[in-house]
Amino acid sequence: MSETSVEAAAREEEIEAAKGHGLSPDFIETFAEALDRDDVGVVRLLSQPLHYSELADLIEALDFEQRGKLIDLIRDNFDPVVLTELDDTVREQVIEHLGMRHVAEAVADMESDDALFVLGEMEPHEQDEVLAALPADERSLIREGLAYPERSAGRLMQREVVAIPEQWTVGESIDFLRGSSDLPLDFYDVILVDPRHHPVATVHLSRLLAAGRPVPLNTLAAKDMKTIPVEMDREEVAFLFRQRDLISAPVVDEDGRLVGAITIDDIVDVIDEEHEEDIMRLAGVGEGDNLFTAVLDTIRARFFWLLTYVVCAFAAATVIRMFQGSINEMVALAILMPIVAAMGGTASVQTLTVAVRAIAMKELTSANALRNIGKELGVAFINGVVFAILVGAVVGLWFADWALGGVIGLAIVLNLVVAGLYGSTMPVLLLRIGVDPAVASSAFATAITDIFGFFVFLGLATLILL
Amino acid sequence: MSETSVEAAAREEEIEAAKGHGLSPDFIETFAEALDRDDVGVVRLLSQPLHYSELADLIEALDFEQRGKLIDLIRDNFDPVVLTELDDTVREQVIEHLGMRHVAEAVADMESDDALFVLGEMEPHEQDEVLAALPADERSLIREGLAYPERSAGRLMQREVVAIPEQWTVGESIDFLRGSSDLPLDFYDVILVDPRHHPVATVHLSRLLAAGRPVPLNTLAAKDMKTIPVEMDREEVAFLFRQRDLISAPVVDEDGRLVGAITIDDIVDVIDEEHEEDIMRLAGVGEGDNLFTAVLDTIRARFFWLLTYVVCAFAAATVIRMFQGSINEMVALAILMPIVAAMGGTASVQTLTVAVRAIAMKELTSANALRNIGKELGVAFINGVVFAILVGAVVGLWFADWALGGVIGLAIVLNLVVAGLYGSTMPVLLLRIGVDPAVASSAFATAITDIFGFFVFLGLATLILL
Repeated sequence: MSETSVEAAAREEEIEAAKGHGLSPDFIETFAEALDRDDVGVVRLLSQPLHYSELADLIEALDFEQRGKLIDLIRDNFDPVVLTELDDTVREQVIEHLGMRHVAEAVADMESDDALFVLGEMEPHEQDEVLAALPADERSLIREGLAYPERSAGRLMQREVVAIPEQWTVGESIDFLRGSSDLPLDFYDVILVDPRHHPVATVHLSRLLAAGRPVPLNTLAAKDMKTIPVEMDREEVAFLFRQRDLISAPVVDEDGRLVGAITIDDIVDVIDEEHEEDIMRLAGVGEGDNLFTAVLDTIRARFFWLLTYVVCAFAAATVIRMFQGSINEMVALAILMPIVAAMGGTASVQTLTVAVRAIAMKELTSANALRNIGKELGVAFINGVVFAILVGAVVGLWFADWALGGVIGLAIVLNLVVAGLYGSTMPVLLLRIGVDPAVASSAFATAITDIFGFFVFLGLATLILL
Repeated sequence: MSETSVEAAAREEEIEAAKGHGLSPDFIETFAEALDRDDVGVVRLLSQPLHYSELADLIEALDFEQRGKLIDLIRDNFDPVVLTELDDTVREQVIEHLGMRHVAEAVADMESDDALFVLGEMEPHEQDEVLAALPADERSLIREGLAYPERSAGRLMQREVVAIPEQWTVGESIDFLRGSSDLPLDFYDVILVDPRHHPVATVHLSRLLAAGRPVPLNTLAAKDMKTIPVEMDREEVAFLFRQRDLISAPVVDEDGRLVGAITIDDIVDVIDEEHEEDIMRLAGVGEGDNLFTAVLDTIRARFFWLLTYVVCAFAAATVIRMFQGSINEMVALAILMPIVAAMGGTASVQTLTVAVRAIAMKELTSANALRNIGKELGVAFINGVVFAILVGAVVGLWFADWALGGVIGLAIVLNLVVAGLYGSTMPVLLLRIGVDPAVASSAFATAITDIFGFFVFLGLATLILL
């Protein structure tokens, strides 16, 4: 596969331009075309200089068949870290395509936290297959890791840490580090431990470097060390990192002994995942429903949620049916009732989202829930009155019926107050009973304000107008 | 204010228990009560051991009056970094309460990135007041920083960096660091620069520490350095940090000269803010609408969005009015039309959210937009057919009218396809024209499927049934 140096230079430039802004659509297209026409030279030329995370992005951007072709071509130089950067669905495909022998080799080359992550996402029989192919010491380390609960600190941590006796000096520590052969790839602080291997303080490397050799390490200790219990939920760990602006933190077992360390790069992934859960649940979409999910899985996941909400919709229809006599007498009611429902829906989704977000950021707790509910009810009432006047006037003019305008205005005030109440109360209640507040999804919020909106508008109209 | 040691111990325990999980509601309540009864001793005792971020959380959890009292009590020992951890609205209150002289002193004590952040959030006249009170060199540094666009790398970076000539050895570097008096508080790598002060590589401190004194630094350089142009959008910067698992990166001016460094802790804040923007815009809530926004500002922000959507609701009402004759003939149409609308709304919010999230994670680009639209249309069609049969059968039984069941089924298929089309296409179109895809909010999505749903259901019913 020869190509002119002009072409090569153009490609190089393209790769450069794409860096730092993600891969450009043009790059991906060129690459996919090369794969389709089995142009091995171009495929190798283009994929070779990519960063592992870019290669992961590229694999995700290809379609199923192209992915297979690419893996076949680069199998022998495949950087195992790519696996940690792939979406779940895509990773499964790639692992299947790589073959278990290759995957086991890849896992053996990884740092302990990456290896644990990749294995943790596999099916049990795949895990066994990979574990069997690992050296005994790595196998037992990973088995230990897999024994921790799925969302715990134990699953996030790396086992390789730099632990130093608390009474050492800067000079002794530097000599030790220079003499060590199995240091972690990168680390940001050393952990001072007592004779029982309990962490007593951490020292940032920048402090260590700037101090003279005779300085005792414990005089350089960071002000407040946070140790992370190995069972701590990863969401709590993320909160701690965010709140304390931590870069890394020691992890301890139930006896307080140092067992590993968590670093900020793993936490960034946790933050992204927690956010994804919130936004997806609010929308009434299952987790893991994304671009890479197979069509059939997507259909199945969405079906479940649609089914839940269609039941709510039938409840709303039943409410309207109670008032079919009124609609028969006055068809304007059927024309206007969606306005009441739509305003309630919008307002409840607004309130709900603010509350769910505040809970995720630990700004909303049971300590200030009442104050927030009060505020939301105030906001709902005042906006309700303003829109009651606005919509009431438009309806009064449109249908030349001011009583109808009054009724829709009253219904809007009441429905907005219900919307504010649902949106500010439901997430807090769910939190109390230990359910993710985001499942009070916008679809449920809309269903509630639909049902109540129809009921109060048609009910008031029947009472007052007919 | 004397208190028994038992009480003190109990409090200490409470503080300990609260650490790492955020402040407990009990702690906040105890604290607020102490403030309300002006119990200075307890307030000082409880607030003194808090981490600055916990103090910030505590200030946020208090009400307006309590905040003022607390600031008055702790003004003289107020840790300025607290300001960087506060929500915008609360920070403004605290700054006002502290008084400009105190704020200027606080800013002077901060690292350059924190100082820039706090000043950047102030009104211009407040900025001038604080700047005037700063020493001349800090003033000019901050003025320079404020000249960068608000969401650029220049606003995120700290100016203090450790730059080392590229030809130095480990020993020379360590001697230099030990002799320096104005190092950054914490740093994670040293930046190798050429004689023109262009960064050529970075060396992680862990590599520096583990190498012998005669080793030349450039042999320890990290594999691929990413330099960040000072004007780069912070969202791009965050993407880069995430993709490359960076901890810190050098920032360069347009001539490629080193001007500062960005560290991951600032990026975590950016990631949180970007998340917040997505989730808020999807819900049709303005940014900065949160627990701490004053009631009046919240009313104003929500009003604007409600007004937009009420216009859409009137459009839907107009569509229904076109078919009022049909509803008069067959009231079942009014009863059932919200079902068609609700299903379309749910489906479009699902599709939209998946697309907005994928765009934020740079998984969805114009390269694979068509494939995603195809997938979503397939999912919509198949779920549409399934629900058409389901809902059609229920309606056929309920109203003993199988033709009506057939019409609602057909309307559902068509509305779900429109929902899939809007949800998968609109975010990509918005991205193309440079608008945040999340403004294709769930409220707009719902409005579209309301309008189309009413139209197609009532239209088909009129054509087929009447």
